[in-house]
Amino acid sequence: MQNFENSSNLALLTDFYQLTMMQGYFFLKPHEVAVFDMYYRKNPCGGGYAIFCGMSEVVDYIENLHFSSDDIAYLRSLGSFKDEFLTYLENFKFSGEIYAVDEGEVVFPHEPLIRVKANIIEAQLIETAILNTINFQTLIATKSSRINFSAGEGSVMEFGLRRAQDKSAAIFGAKAAIIGGCVATSNVLAAKIFDIPAIGTHSHAWIGSFPSEIEAFRAYAKIYPDSALLLVDTYDTLNSGVPNAIKVFEELREQGHKPLGIRIDSGDLEYLTKQSRKMLDNAGFKDAKITASNDLDEYAIDQLKLFDAKIDSWGIGTRLITGGDSSSLGGVYKLSGIEKEGEILPKIKISNDPRKINNPGYKQFFRLYDKDSGMALADLITLENENIDESAPLEIFHPLYTYKRKKLENFSAKAMLKPVFVHGKFVGEKKSVMQIAEFSRKAKAKFWCEYLRNIHPQTYKVDLSAKLWETRKSLIDEINANLGKS
Amino acid sequence: MQNFENSSNLALLTDFYQLTMMQGYFFLKPHEVAVFDMYYRKNPCGGGYAIFCGMSEVVDYIENLHFSSDDIAYLRSLGSFKDEFLTYLENFKFSGEIYAVDEGEVVFPHEPLIRVKANIIEAQLIETAILNTINFQTLIATKSSRINFSAGEGSVMEFGLRRAQDKSAAIFGAKAAIIGGCVATSNVLAAKIFDIPAIGTHSHAWIGSFPSEIEAFRAYAKIYPDSALLLVDTYDTLNSGVPNAIKVFEELREQGHKPLGIRIDSGDLEYLTKQSRKMLDNAGFKDAKITASNDLDEYAIDQLKLFDAKIDSWGIGTRLITGGDSSSLGGVYKLSGIEKEGEILPKIKISNDPRKINNPGYKQFFRLYDKDSGMALADLITLENENIDESAPLEIFHPLYTYKRKKLENFSAKAMLKPVFVHGKFVGEKKSVMQIAEFSRKAKAKFWCEYLRNIHPQTYKVDLSAKLWETRKSLIDEINANLGKS
Repeated sequence: MQNFENSSNLALLTDFYQLTMMQGYFFLKPHEVAVFDMYYRKNPCGGGYAIFCGMSEVVDYIENLHFSSDDIAYLRSLGSFKDEFLTYLENFKFSGEIYAVDEGEVVFPHEPLIRVKANIIEAQLIETAILNTINFQTLIATKSSRINFSAGEGSVMEFGLRRAQDKSAAIFGAKAAIIGGCVATSNVLAAKIFDIPAIGTHSHAWIGSFPSEIEAFRAYAKIYPDSALLLVDTYDTLNSGVPNAIKVFEELREQGHKPLGIRIDSGDLEYLTKQSRKMLDNAGFKDAKITASNDLDEYAIDQLKLFDAKIDSWGIGTRLITGGDSSSLGGVYKLSGIEKEGEILPKIKISNDPRKINNPGYKQFFRLYDKDSGMALADLITLENENIDESAPLEIFHPLYTYKRKKLENFSAKAMLKPVFVHGKFVGEKKSVMQIAEFSRKAKAKFWCEYLRNIHPQTYKVDLSAKLWETRKSLIDEINANLGKS
Repeated sequence: MQNFENSSNLALLTDFYQLTMMQGYFFLKPHEVAVFDMYYRKNPCGGGYAIFCGMSEVVDYIENLHFSSDDIAYLRSLGSFKDEFLTYLENFKFSGEIYAVDEGEVVFPHEPLIRVKANIIEAQLIETAILNTINFQTLIATKSSRINFSAGEGSVMEFGLRRAQDKSAAIFGAKAAIIGGCVATSNVLAAKIFDIPAIGTHSHAWIGSFPSEIEAFRAYAKIYPDSALLLVDTYDTLNSGVPNAIKVFEELREQGHKPLGIRIDSGDLEYLTKQSRKMLDNAGFKDAKITASNDLDEYAIDQLKLFDAKIDSWGIGTRLITGGDSSSLGGVYKLSGIEKEGEILPKIKISNDPRKINNPGYKQFFRLYDKDSGMALADLITLENENIDESAPLEIFHPLYTYKRKKLENFSAKAMLKPVFVHGKFVGEKKSVMQIAEFSRKAKAKFWCEYLRNIHPQTYKVDLSAKLWETRKSLIDEINANLGKS
């Protein structure tokens, strides 16, 4: 099992081929420096954006990265690794440079979210853990953002622990859900680790363990008179649950307490919440809240709201914590350059699919904001040493359909990749989960709603600078020439 | 972060409502004993069965379950819990009984897979961690079993670490994949923890880091002359990758080495593997294997095999380690009884959907095998104290459509729930992952292929004993009478 609260050694949380390649580099070119970019190609859930998440844990991983004597003994036992290489691993420490986007930021396909420049042996090792961490947390933060976009700010609770893909998904998924906009989690351990609100009242088992529903409600109200949120669907929501809840609410009112409300976890949520709302209102409990749960997601929420279901608060489990049928983000980590005599030689991987060819070179990217409204206009991926002149008009163009052009004026440009590790030393800023959530909320507010819409959103422009576009084209031409294709 | 190798404290890996209910039970009925069943209602991926997986980690969890002083301090800081209850938690230890199905067994909807009989305070706490563990591992073991059913025994490797839903999903998912039939994993940490084979050679980055593909292949072959499995799709599989691989294979052959083969990770796998096979064969490398990867699953494998793609071995990542679009198993943990004066009073939760009403009471279930063929005939869920008389014919009937009846003769009956904890003491048997995988292979061999088919399988019969069926019916009638519905 695992201890989720203490940083510990994840050096072996890597693909076996990273170790075989590392040994190869170690013997053949031990001093080579490489540049790798972490990026993804397709937004989660068919949406228009993602919320970058997981960087705090990447930092934690890099800072604690080392091979224990036990790890070395295990690797030795496999018979594939030579003593010299194992000795190198014994002294392994990440000594390179990592730049990354701020955690919680709105990001788009093909943007370099993490840029690693390091000895190729080191850069290769960390690929797998970086992808594992960022792919999952970014997926869940994005799903959470989508669900919160549908439900409305401040109304969504994360309830997915029992359906999460094992323990760490539950814990770091709860964190990502908060960053995406949820107000609380049912997961006590996540609440403790990240200092985020924990929430919950009782389940059907509470009701079933008493001789009758009304006795179960009374018992709960006795112990928790000021936080009575009663689950009303164990036997029959409208004929038993709500009438019994109202009886107990009346008793609480007589004793000077204010009941919280009810939760409905099954059945037709539109009909049941409308009827329950009327019954609660008629009994004088207009402030009592109705919480709904049961396999909900952004689409179900949209439908229920469209038909005016009376739901104040949403408990979202399975489809939030797993991403539902979009259960992975396909983030990749690709070699984009090799240092030769102090210069970064750009590198590319060719594919039949033009969108799968990576952007070569040592890069940066900028977000361009309209100076008047403050809203985001477009992103521009550039080579590292390019400057954006904010005082002159800037023509940007689509990287595949280059006839699509747009001239930008009156904009400000923000460099998105910021230093996190320099010479192996952490130089970034550590933030709490609530701080990252607040940052994310503000970052999203810079985007017009049309880009954030869950279904068929407008595509936000992410273009390449002319210099980067030329670099890419000349590399493709060169490879085709070598293959005798041009 | 986490230490996955040492057992540690997961007491707070629970839903907040478990703690509020526990406090309620503690003050209102501290000595009540309850029975809970863990079961699921729908097979994963639309299939006909599941592979029960995760029990080793449930045992580990229960054995290590305690609240640290740090946990107690955290709970105290929330202000919801009274000192007496917190003192109880400080001394908490699971003291109840747990019966479970053998890990790796073939199981079906509505069967009680884990049966907990314990003080209700204890039984309530462990719900969430049990569900989190079993839901995920059972999902992945089942997905692995499906993929292996399509690919054929001994040909599938688990490659999903980078796309897994965080770290523990990668680790315990690799374990579950092996139990479902995979032969190896790319995940080094999982391989170390569970003593299972780790596998892998090199990625596109290896190729890109050298001036040319042929130089990269030569470099790899120099370091690993006896395990050269070369990735051939970095630039152009048929015009560059395979011809270059063959050149290097010829050089290896001259030096007395036997090349392993090639891997193709993109493009049309049917066409590319057929052409590559011909090229390898013509060059005299009939023994060189072709490994395919790239977003594969059981359906893609079926298609590729149907059209005679030349693939010897499959590397399966994302869709195995996450379940793809079936990313959760909806396992539940329901109260089925409360002890009163030494007897278990059966308990039920009603639902509009007849399949969602639980089976009440303290239960067992049996697998009935044909005595001649040894093959499984049907499963029968019973009350705990029922015996199956193997010497007499047994009439079983469908629990919803009771006219569907079948008479069984010449069968043997195996009790499926076995003791794991008695009075809080572990009484089961600990097995290695490879032992569980072997057990699972044998358990599956007792089922006719029609039940294991991936698409539209035959439904395996899981019926209730007449006694259990009557118990269930009378409880439903009683509740309806109380609601004035009958």
